[in-house]
Amino acid sequence: MQIEHPYLLFLGDARDALAAKTGLGIVDWRPEWCIGQMRLPGCNADAKLPDMNPREAADRGVRTMVIGVVNAGGVLPDDWVSIIVDALDSGLDVASGLHMRLGDIPEIAAAAQRNGRKLHDVRMSNERFATGKGDKRPGMRLLTVGTDCSVGKKYTALALEKGMRDAGFDADFRATGQTGVFISGRGAAIDAVVADFISGAVEWISPTAEPDHWDLIEGQGSLFHPSFAGVSLGLLHGAQPDAFVVCHEPTRRNMRGVNTPLPTIGDVIHMTIACGRLTNPAIRCVGIAVNTQALDEAEARDELARIEKTYGLPATDPVRFGVEGIVAEIKARFGKG
Amino acid sequence: MQIEHPYLLFLGDARDALAAKTGLGIVDWRPEWCIGQMRLPGCNADAKLPDMNPREAADRGVRTMVIGVVNAGGVLPDDWVSIIVDALDSGLDVASGLHMRLGDIPEIAAAAQRNGRKLHDVRMSNERFATGKGDKRPGMRLLTVGTDCSVGKKYTALALEKGMRDAGFDADFRATGQTGVFISGRGAAIDAVVADFISGAVEWISPTAEPDHWDLIEGQGSLFHPSFAGVSLGLLHGAQPDAFVVCHEPTRRNMRGVNTPLPTIGDVIHMTIACGRLTNPAIRCVGIAVNTQALDEAEARDELARIEKTYGLPATDPVRFGVEGIVAEIKARFGKG
Repeated sequence: MQIEHPYLLFLGDARDALAAKTGLGIVDWRPEWCIGQMRLPGCNADAKLPDMNPREAADRGVRTMVIGVVNAGGVLPDDWVSIIVDALDSGLDVASGLHMRLGDIPEIAAAAQRNGRKLHDVRMSNERFATGKGDKRPGMRLLTVGTDCSVGKKYTALALEKGMRDAGFDADFRATGQTGVFISGRGAAIDAVVADFISGAVEWISPTAEPDHWDLIEGQGSLFHPSFAGVSLGLLHGAQPDAFVVCHEPTRRNMRGVNTPLPTIGDVIHMTIACGRLTNPAIRCVGIAVNTQALDEAEARDELARIEKTYGLPATDPVRFGVEGIVAEIKARFGKG
Repeated sequence: MQIEHPYLLFLGDARDALAAKTGLGIVDWRPEWCIGQMRLPGCNADAKLPDMNPREAADRGVRTMVIGVVNAGGVLPDDWVSIIVDALDSGLDVASGLHMRLGDIPEIAAAAQRNGRKLHDVRMSNERFATGKGDKRPGMRLLTVGTDCSVGKKYTALALEKGMRDAGFDADFRATGQTGVFISGRGAAIDAVVADFISGAVEWISPTAEPDHWDLIEGQGSLFHPSFAGVSLGLLHGAQPDAFVVCHEPTRRNMRGVNTPLPTIGDVIHMTIACGRLTNPAIRCVGIAVNTQALDEAEARDELARIEKTYGLPATDPVRFGVEGIVAEIKARFGKG
């Protein structure tokens, strides 16, 4: 699966920025791929792109309309169906992260068929994965892991892609979640894969590469999250990372959505190495990425200094202070770049 | 999902006992549920049950025809389709562990519909699971874990169900694989669940119970298997076991299907406790079940004695020597029964 860019972002009638976070995430990281947005009456999200309809987008070279908004209730509104059909009739592919298959809607399936266009259901992969092999693949790999869900694993992997490229590394972000797939045009939503194929899907997402090439693999969940740890472990085994970065949100007390207390950063380092060495005995931690949004700058600097001292590893907030320290650690430990 | 018994076992044209192992496993553990078998010309498997067709089976009170055989190539032969339609027309439900949905075949879907009969696709659950909660549920739980796949986890859980019931415990086997689901009439093939819902599915499989009640939960894979460890971890977190038994095959050198060496029993005990305490801090190992099929009786006794000495826990081959030692350990550690 390869999603062709540039994109038209369909934001629907998103009630706020959160409802359109997939679309806004794409434009944050791939502004050069985003030509326009399409918004319906009542839309309160704005990707700061020219408003246009599918036909105008096609005229400007857009290849794919991305549904970058969640729909309420899991049913596709009739006016969305017409817009998707219109996009297909205008010659665009359509990509969606909705919890339904676009092709299950007969009008959409027929329009894709008659125009020879592709429908990408990022959360419902048609890819037939193999089970994981566990054999070490050439190429270098870094995985972002977390003390919890939603602590900046995608952001950190993308920031490292940019930081490592700037430092001369040959590096590519590898997506394991829906927004990440739109940002990279490739990948799979790993939490939507059948359980038997988690590590096999990651072996497909991050295939054999040149010995000096780095894959920066987007982590999911946490080995300490009682809902999603299975996904995180399969992802770790399939990624067989040489290096990992622990992502953390210091003000959180419980794991997201459950009553389980947050593990420490040290717990996560220890468990990631204990499990990860099954497929890469040389696995090591190269840094800690802390989301300090809830702290003022002085508090953030104090927290990062405390974490650096405790673990003897570079700690940063990638958004606030960049990732240079982690890139330097990678260079020091693995050379090249 | 509840599969109604008694069963008619459909063994098709199974070329050998291995091809019919699902059917033969059911009759091993639930002989009283199995009224007959249906075999086609060329079938080399024999469940030692009266041969009968669906109509004869219905007359004898059978409720469900179970497809207890694998089909080659993933396509359902035409004569199987007719037999399944005949079973539905005879008033039977049909349950299958095939890698396809029975209801995707129009003739079968129509026959189920017109007769008001159920189709159970055990490997493709229609159950909508929630994500795991991680909250401790009342009731006692034991999980069988493994140094590898196919080392006797289902057999051990079933043997413990019988042994604990004989010792006066209120105990139920809980299935997480297709043969297990047919044996218990309930459960889910956990490796076929979407990755996000592994632990949630296990919370559904082993729900809240009386404080003295024991669920004996069938394990899957191994925390050390690079293809399937994600399934094993989600299963461990969802099962939140008070006790676990490690299953082991002492002559195996590599994990099944991959090049990864087998972990030691001690590795598995350590990792199961390290991961399992997330949802049950009191988790403990109560025994080791060793498949000694490849050893003669003296070698088997030596191996078991060596393992008991090394780990200070009862070690047995459930098939050869029963599970009394493990049941005694459970009684000693947890009382009751």
